Amino acid sequence: MSNSYGSLFRITTFGESHGPAIGVVIDGCPAGLTIDETFVQSELTRRKPGQSKITTQRKEDDNFKILSGVFEGRSTGTPIAMVIENQDQRSKDYKHIAETFRPSHADFTYEAKYGHRDYRGGGRSSARETAARVAAGAIAKLFLKENSIEITAFVSRVGEISAPDYKQLDLSQIESNIVRCPDANTANKMIDLIDQVRLDRDTVGGVVTCVIKNVPVGLGEPVFDKLHAELGKAMLSINAVKGFEYGSGFDGVKLRGSQHNDEFYKEGGRIRTRTNFSGGIQGGISNGEDIYFNVAFKPVATIMQDQNSVDKDGNEAVVSGKGRHDPCVVPRAVPIVEAMAALVLADFLLRYRAAMPEGG
Amino acid sequence: MSNSYGSLFRITTFGESHGPAIGVVIDGCPAGLTIDETFVQSELTRRKPGQSKITTQRKEDDNFKILSGVFEGRSTGTPIAMVIENQDQRSKDYKHIAETFRPSHADFTYEAKYGHRDYRGGGRSSARETAARVAAGAIAKLFLKENSIEITAFVSRVGEISAPDYKQLDLSQIESNIVRCPDANTANKMIDLIDQVRLDRDTVGGVVTCVIKNVPVGLGEPVFDKLHAELGKAMLSINAVKGFEYGSGFDGVKLRGSQHNDEFYKEGGRIRTRTNFSGGIQGGISNGEDIYFNVAFKPVATIMQDQNSVDKDGNEAVVSGKGRHDPCVVPRAVPIVEAMAALVLADFLLRYRAAMPEGG
Amino acid sequence: MSNSYGSLFRITTFGESHGPAIGVVIDGCPAGLTIDETFVQSELTRRKPGQSKITTQRKEDDNFKILSGVFEGRSTGTPIAMVIENQDQRSKDYKHIAETFRPSHADFTYEAKYGHRDYRGGGRSSARETAARVAAGAIAKLFLKENSIEITAFVSRVGEISAPDYKQLDLSQIESNIVRCPDANTANKMIDLIDQVRLDRDTVGGVVTCVIKNVPVGLGEPVFDKLHAELGKAMLSINAVKGFEYGSGFDGVKLRGSQHNDEFYKEGGRIRTRTNFSGGIQGGISNGEDIYFNVAFKPVATIMQDQNSVDKDGNEAVVSGKGRHDPCVVPRAVPIVEAMAALVLADFLLRYRAAMPEGG
Amino acid sequence: MSNSYGSLFRITTFGESHGPAIGVVIDGCPAGLTIDETFVQSELTRRKPGQSKITTQRKEDDNFKILSGVFEGRSTGTPIAMVIENQDQRSKDYKHIAETFRPSHADFTYEAKYGHRDYRGGGRSSARETAARVAAGAIAKLFLKENSIEITAFVSRVGEISAPDYKQLDLSQIESNIVRCPDANTANKMIDLIDQVRLDRDTVGGVVTCVIKNVPVGLGEPVFDKLHAELGKAMLSINAVKGFEYGSGFDGVKLRGSQHNDEFYKEGGRIRTRTNFSGGIQGGISNGEDIYFNVAFKPVATIMQDQNSVDKDGNEAVVSGKGRHDPCVVPRAVPIVEAMAALVLADFLLRYRAAMPEGG
Repeated sequence: MSNSYGSLFRITTFGESHGPAIGVVIDGCPAGLTIDETFVQSELTRRKPGQSKITTQRKEDDNFKILSGVFEGRSTGTPIAMVIENQDQRSKDYKHIAETFRPSHADFTYEAKYGHRDYRGGGRSSARETAARVAAGAIAKLFLKENSIEITAFVSRVGEISAPDYKQLDLSQIESNIVRCPDANTANKMIDLIDQVRLDRDTVGGVVTCVIKNVPVGLGEPVFDKLHAELGKAMLSINAVKGFEYGSGFDGVKLRGSQHNDEFYKEGGRIRTRTNFSGGIQGGISNGEDIYFNVAFKPVATIMQDQNSVDKDGNEAVVSGKGRHDPCVVPRAVPIVEAMAALVLADFLLRYRAAMPEGG
Repeated sequence: MSNSYGSLFRITTFGESHGPAIGVVIDGCPAGLTIDETFVQSELTRRKPGQSKITTQRKEDDNFKILSGVFEGRSTGTPIAMVIENQDQRSKDYKHIAETFRPSHADFTYEAKYGHRDYRGGGRSSARETAARVAAGAIAKLFLKENSIEITAFVSRVGEISAPDYKQLDLSQIESNIVRCPDANTANKMIDLIDQVRLDRDTVGGVVTCVIKNVPVGLGEPVFDKLHAELGKAMLSINAVKGFEYGSGFDGVKLRGSQHNDEFYKEGGRIRTRTNFSGGIQGGISNGEDIYFNVAFKPVATIMQDQNSVDKDGNEAVVSGKGRHDPCVVPRAVPIVEAMAALVLADFLLRYRAAMPEGG
Repeated sequence: MSNSYGSLFRITTFGESHGPAIGVVIDGCPAGLTIDETFVQSELTRRKPGQSKITTQRKEDDNFKILSGVFEGRSTGTPIAMVIENQDQRSKDYKHIAETFRPSHADFTYEAKYGHRDYRGGGRSSARETAARVAAGAIAKLFLKENSIEITAFVSRVGEISAPDYKQLDLSQIESNIVRCPDANTANKMIDLIDQVRLDRDTVGGVVTCVIKNVPVGLGEPVFDKLHAELGKAMLSINAVKGFEYGSGFDGVKLRGSQHNDEFYKEGGRIRTRTNFSGGIQGGISNGEDIYFNVAFKPVATIMQDQNSVDKDGNEAVVSGKGRHDPCVVPRAVPIVEAMAALVLADFLLRYRAAMPEGG
Repeated sequence: MSNSYGSLFRITTFGESHGPAIGVVIDGCPAGLTIDETFVQSELTRRKPGQSKITTQRKEDDNFKILSGVFEGRSTGTPIAMVIENQDQRSKDYKHIAETFRPSHADFTYEAKYGHRDYRGGGRSSARETAARVAAGAIAKLFLKENSIEITAFVSRVGEISAPDYKQLDLSQIESNIVRCPDANTANKMIDLIDQVRLDRDTVGGVVTCVIKNVPVGLGEPVFDKLHAELGKAMLSINAVKGFEYGSGFDGVKLRGSQHNDEFYKEGGRIRTRTNFSGGIQGGISNGEDIYFNVAFKPVATIMQDQNSVDKDGNEAVVSGKGRHDPCVVPRAVPIVEAMAALVLADFLLRYRAAMPEGG
């Protein structure tokens, strides 16, 4: 039950990094939606390894196949199953971690919890699982697009280097560089930093910021399934994420209420707020303003250095850095953040329809 | 369905701030647990209004009554229903907000979503709902205590004033002052700040830090119900929360992997980590180290000042600050954070039992 | 989690027969629904004990109180909590079953499963819990009535005495007699039989038939949540129910496909079937014809006779018939069957709204 | 969300009869379970078409492939995905039903609900979907076998021909004949009847009886998820099922309580009942006696005759019987009933573990 997400637009992912395939089943996608397979593939390509010099050099094409739920190009309302075969398996690379726990990976906790695990490449705990999320998220995006909702994420920070506030940025420029930061100057600095970290055989963390526009007023379900609470859970479920904040976030705690409150006014026939410290969500429900939030990613745990650790029996052991890994995860995390946001929004859009007031 | 939380240890809350009562039903609490009603009351008292000069001066005793699920002092495995009657209702105080939207409250979004709302004191969107969570959380704490798990939260920041790292603090001192910060010096500064903000007829935000000790290895359900993802959702579902981070959190993004990785070693027969940037959770599963996280609370939206806003029809209107409200929410938020953490841990403890490996 | 039912229109019941109160929380009732409390009370009165000579003579008024979710007479979209206080508790009557297991009751299985149970009057396993279902079902009926859906149940069999097929009956006559069978002749025979069984200090079983009219085409969610599968679960969850069949039911197995298939035709602009062996449901989805089904109730387990049994330790013991009990449960089961049917239909109506096709 | 079943041992099925593949994802299977693929295949083979002269002559081998969740022959606690490719697709056979509604099939209701459907062979509404259930049920059976629980189903009735009570039968003989009735004499009559019906180009209904042995005391979750309520839902979710009864079932309504009550006694150190009208379940919880229930299947809707119907626009149309179909579904339904029963039991076994009393 822990491999499913969502209430009405619901996904279930499966697969290990070095098994035959990974995949996802979407249950609850409305019938009649045009499924643009080219778009789904393009989203997977944004996430795939080997796309630039600052990502891992592993080659995986991540081609997907739809097994069900789509007929003559449109969804039928039945489960949409998608499968991505694993190509670059090289299981031999991973025998060394069968018995030893890599620091700050899930090797130890999976071993302790399950007793028996597929250790190859992290198995189920590998971020490869997120490819399934991106495929499902692409379907969610197609659904949201029909409802005018737009989701855009970008890299707002790498290590100590930060981009300006999103409102000062041209979000159409995100894909114009390999680090996916829409500010060219900042992007260059980020790329240089990641390159240096890579040469140091080390890794570095970063922040992805996500902006969601044109959300209708009324999405979100108090009291526990507040819109930002589900967005938070969705983001925190992504590998390597350590924090989530929306609207004014952690910086908001410094402000006085008189500074932080968003004044209502009427514009163009609808009620809006002059400022948006609320991040587009009040009382857990969207208010029609931009939703924006930040997601913190830790430095990737796999480094190209020797590290002290222990084996299954607790004996001292050394873990050597091997294989091809990302020096910084955030450029490839951008489509993952968008995908999870899309899945959350699609779900709440369906829940919104179910909860329409009588006579409403 | 949005008023329930948890999978196996599951609560459903109900009630508006000015209706007859609020309450909670706990479904899934194991049978045979001794229910210490005095402890439950003491938890409610930690949350109740009017407890000190830096909280709202509203008087509500928050006495609870158990309607079911407990027989001869012990749980029976059937639903535990608890009700808290609303005493200090003063509905007349709230007629002014029936037609006008208070800035950064949920008045506008509830009106837009539901069409019909109990506007008195915020109704369902009032933080009064959290009393039901605290009552349920107290039962969860009793269950966790039987399993040696301890949850402690404290105020680590008010505005710009921050306490030292939790490892340098004596957590037994949290209740020694009214702001619930275990460092006496910092606590005094926080109290002074809140008092000043109150005199300014304003409000200020803060951070609550929570530490969970003695968690067994293996709690948390990959991939979507990672332990920290559920903790994040639980915290973000609390009124006024804007952010959540665990372990190294947002600061961790600055570090290199070589600094951030937690080296394994063996101590006293069990595998531990020398540092704990992981925050006690790896791959979404507890690793036996302390779990710790921060929760950011915005400044309370109700301020004792006139504010510009609009009425239901979008006409300009002025909202006046009335009633008795908290200048800073974090001292009273401490037991709420603990309660939500306890509910999450109790749920995962039951899920852990259900997921034991064959022959394990 | 086993005390909740429904997906979007969801109830959670609580309470033991001899605790302070029983009750229910409804989560997901749409906002804006007019809550006719007189109707809710009238439904509870149809179920209450002591209503006629053929039911138990226990006196319980079953007055309910709404604690939340209704404001100025209409639902607000927040949880509707309703409580019914237990009045006729007479705990002393039940001490004799604290240690001994009544045959065909839940005493033994509850003791084995939970270790600790409220034995008074069956506690949680008492059919008293169904009063909470009836209260919630009344709210569901109000919602369905706004959507033109009508639910009617009646007693179609007691022991060997059966009523004619529902299509030959005037369903407006159900409440015209105390056994709730709309055929006067059959009703009299049933009443005589129950009376005789009562004098014999025994009990007898029966069947309740339910008919649902005006269901729109499209309710039901393949493949697991077929409309009849949920109806079946809902009915089987009622105390004393041993079987469920819909449409042609068990008798349908004798027919040939050429007899059993329902021919489509067009009438008054809509597609209908000439016969209705399908029971208004095809492929798990309503087709617009009447939905009808039968629910089998066993003879009540409490009889006014001495029975052999064992105590907790397995020692032989005699259970004496005491207290005031129903000689036949079906007359009072009629509103319970209707309530559960209403809850299922209300839930599927909301799910139907959520699952509307794109552009539909 | 309607394509998932189970709470802790949870399956999600996908696939249409004439798409690329059908399949299932199992979430919640405990780690460490030995996965005997030969056994899974043998279960699929019991369900597959073309296995005897009294089933459809369609040829489908129903070979399955495991994509995830199994490593070195044992489950890892992660989702087990299984896929069965569709081989005998012959889409051309089905063009004639694209526009016309087959009587008593799901064509009309799917069209009305979803607007857009895969009409080929019934698409998602085809009983082919049950192959995925059988594959998942086989895994559940392996898990149950480790816990000594045995599930056996057989054909107890075809048309008017019934087998004796299960307690008089040698259940080891079920697979000794093609109709899967363990009584040789009855089996021969059933086979003759089905053969005659086939020659008549017609179909006939039947009943499958299922017996579950060695269930520990305590499985089942009151009040809504009673063990028999979930079994009922699971069975009613199978294509063509019209009724479910357990223990004394519909016949029990004729009995007096004094006849129907199951007397407790002690035998071999455990508490048992002398009779078993309760069907092994009391108060929704297993009591350790045999669980047994009957499932009614209607005659297959596809007959080799012309039938009057309408097309999408309501115009009169004739549906001709084409293709290769079963004259009676129950012989192939036996493994499906067992599979669904196994899934229910596996789920309740995990829920049982989660609900253990404190100190229990």
